Amino acid sequence: MIFLTTLLLFALSTSAARYPSFGTLQTTTSSGVLNVVINNTFSSINLFDFHVQSDLANLIETLQAPDTDIRVVVFSSGNPDFFIGHIDVNYFLPGYDSPLPAFDPFLPGVTFPTALLWNITQLPQATIASIEGRTRGIGNEFLMSLDMRFATTSPSVLLAQLETSFGLNPGAGGALYLAPLIGRGRTFEYVLAAKDIDAATAAEYGWINKAFDTHAALTDYVQALAARIALFPAAGIAGTKQGINAVSRPSLDVIVHEAQNVIGVLAQNPEARAFTEKFVVATDNQSAVELELNYGEELVKLFQ
Amino acid sequence: MIFLTTLLLFALSTSAARYPSFGTLQTTTSSGVLNVVINNTFSSINLFDFHVQSDLANLIETLQAPDTDIRVVVFSSGNPDFFIGHIDVNYFLPGYDSPLPAFDPFLPGVTFPTALLWNITQLPQATIASIEGRTRGIGNEFLMSLDMRFATTSPSVLLAQLETSFGLNPGAGGALYLAPLIGRGRTFEYVLAAKDIDAATAAEYGWINKAFDTHAALTDYVQALAARIALFPAAGIAGTKQGINAVSRPSLDVIVHEAQNVIGVLAQNPEARAFTEKFVVATDNQSAVELELNYGEELVKLFQ
Amino acid sequence: MIFLTTLLLFALSTSAARYPSFGTLQTTTSSGVLNVVINNTFSSINLFDFHVQSDLANLIETLQAPDTDIRVVVFSSGNPDFFIGHIDVNYFLPGYDSPLPAFDPFLPGVTFPTALLWNITQLPQATIASIEGRTRGIGNEFLMSLDMRFATTSPSVLLAQLETSFGLNPGAGGALYLAPLIGRGRTFEYVLAAKDIDAATAAEYGWINKAFDTHAALTDYVQALAARIALFPAAGIAGTKQGINAVSRPSLDVIVHEAQNVIGVLAQNPEARAFTEKFVVATDNQSAVELELNYGEELVKLFQ
Repeated sequence: MIFLTTLLLFALSTSAARYPSFGTLQTTTSSGVLNVVINNTFSSINLFDFHVQSDLANLIETLQAPDTDIRVVVFSSGNPDFFIGHIDVNYFLPGYDSPLPAFDPFLPGVTFPTALLWNITQLPQATIASIEGRTRGIGNEFLMSLDMRFATTSPSVLLAQLETSFGLNPGAGGALYLAPLIGRGRTFEYVLAAKDIDAATAAEYGWINKAFDTHAALTDYVQALAARIALFPAAGIAGTKQGINAVSRPSLDVIVHEAQNVIGVLAQNPEARAFTEKFVVATDNQSAVELELNYGEELVKLFQ
Repeated sequence: MIFLTTLLLFALSTSAARYPSFGTLQTTTSSGVLNVVINNTFSSINLFDFHVQSDLANLIETLQAPDTDIRVVVFSSGNPDFFIGHIDVNYFLPGYDSPLPAFDPFLPGVTFPTALLWNITQLPQATIASIEGRTRGIGNEFLMSLDMRFATTSPSVLLAQLETSFGLNPGAGGALYLAPLIGRGRTFEYVLAAKDIDAATAAEYGWINKAFDTHAALTDYVQALAARIALFPAAGIAGTKQGINAVSRPSLDVIVHEAQNVIGVLAQNPEARAFTEKFVVATDNQSAVELELNYGEELVKLFQ
Repeated sequence: MIFLTTLLLFALSTSAARYPSFGTLQTTTSSGVLNVVINNTFSSINLFDFHVQSDLANLIETLQAPDTDIRVVVFSSGNPDFFIGHIDVNYFLPGYDSPLPAFDPFLPGVTFPTALLWNITQLPQATIASIEGRTRGIGNEFLMSLDMRFATTSPSVLLAQLETSFGLNPGAGGALYLAPLIGRGRTFEYVLAAKDIDAATAAEYGWINKAFDTHAALTDYVQALAARIALFPAAGIAGTKQGINAVSRPSLDVIVHEAQNVIGVLAQNPEARAFTEKFVVATDNQSAVELELNYGEELVKLFQ
């Protein structure tokens, strides 16, 4: 790897930020590559709560700016146990309070988190996940919204869509990206059973691009890939993404009607609400307890 | 595997059955899981004939009932050599007689077998195949209509779409499900060449979810998976299936126009009809002779 | 392999050829199989230039004839280093001269090379690539237009979409076929980074059907597969292809709007034009120099 790295603090123009800033994303730039470390200091499990959502929405707006010279974005985590957490499930309970609007101001009928992930897929930059730690629920849907996914084979890397165990579904459309990646059969298996998948199996199935044995191997590969793509003209990156997106991404209409609106109905079911409340209590409101760390195995206890 | 199994005879309300009952499906239930053993006693190769089709149609109607407590359905076979056979090819010859209507009463223009497989994909339950024995032609299309597929690596497990060798095509749409599972290239290879695939290769390519070395390993895995899914609320299972189906299943319109209606035309060709008649004679009307057991290799003899 | 091969010179009715003939394709027939050797004697890298395009267009017209008895077409290469080259990049520069029309006469708005590849997907015959040598850019898009792809694991087999490095995109739609074959994530990785893929990895991901250790193993497998398919009635082959194409191929409309027209705009960018001119000079106008042989590694030098 022979590229010189000049780390510069990437100055989010916070004065112009549309949404509140919570400092959950640390960013550095280097020759057209933006490295983003996700570190939700409000949560021990790097929860995908309104803090992270708000900061991500501001980041996206910056990346959409026509004068940006960023051509590749790499996401990694500041929490060794959780690349990124699931959604704050209080979102599905009465009394949830958030500074974010319920719906995206530019995409009528699209909820804020669903629009967030959709907007990520629309970015002109190449986007890459460098995964260490657990990534479940909307965390995995966030992975799906990125162009590429790499991980280590550490036992702490566990990916899952856990919604069905709640009586819900992956409401931001994550399973709709998973089906063309790993096939209809394995999507049903992992999503209907809310099963964890490890990195080696995920790479074998195509859920992620590739798995590496060490942190160093992962980082070297991802940074070299990012630096290489960042050599190329921005217009070619965006133009190539347009074609691939056109055939490999569910339409926003399908995401809204077959995922987002479905979870909207399911979340009203007393059975789903009771399970969610039980989960909040059992996890000490979504903290790094065994049930969160090892949900794939532990969830059965919630049904005993 | 720590769930208690209470086997109960699942009482199909035969009084209300829409179609004749032939007893080709043995069913038992256990905590929300329905186990279905396919055993067509009218055929030595577990033919997917009108007996099986009629019984499956009645089963589907039961599973569609709003008050069912079945959340997962597992299909296995009572015939060690054939998980399920191909269609009774007399269906394509003059003089074929069946108690079933040619077209589905609720899906105008959709033939009975095509509608049967479509209706399986629409079930609110998770559906799983536990495959031992050969599964060719519409047998494999039946596999495609299920959510998940598991098999043993026994040499008796051979999957194929054999229609092209007859001058036909997979008329119920099976190849249209296969393409997103194993890719366009391998679908053309296996379907155009009417090639058998073994379980290990099928698992490598994604045709099935996973292959197991023994009957016990297969059964343990499938029953544990079924029991786990059956823990979850029915609404979440159905809602999650809706989204995955929306992106991973060919539309019924495409199945009808690009598969069903194509075979309708092809079956009229004298070349296809002559081959079908030759096949009926050479197999002793589709009995467990070498040509049926080992069609992938033996078929070349029919062209000599 | 027990089939007898009678090689006959396949007489292209050159009198009726729509486009100029340049003799870049050598053809032989054997029992319904047409073997086509691509050997562009005008180029040391088997360039996909107007000579090859013109000859391919004439070949397609022959294969579309209703009275043909060809049921399978196998493409191999006469150049040991290049299965087929990329496009003659002068196509994107002012002053390019060619005897071919800019647009297909029967597909309004579709450029000649884009239409050529589309027409290949429409052939009633099964089409197979037997790959030895490098295959990049439109060369790989040509591979994508064929039904099946097989290769040797020789280090000379390297597949790539190199367009993004030029500030362009795969303009004939190749990446749109790649996404359902290898998944959205790996497509972004290889296409955005203009990375070479070797045959073993390509077979693991599904980019090609299978990789073989030797020329003999490749040829035996492909010829046996071709001979087997050629046993079957032509109508069944064409009818089966219709269904698989309906679900596994991007529509021509998507190819035109999301690939062809995108490259039409990108090629006007000064950055893309400057890189193309630099490439022409650095490769001695696309000859078998190190930069062409090993573009995946060497390209970084063009950005220094």
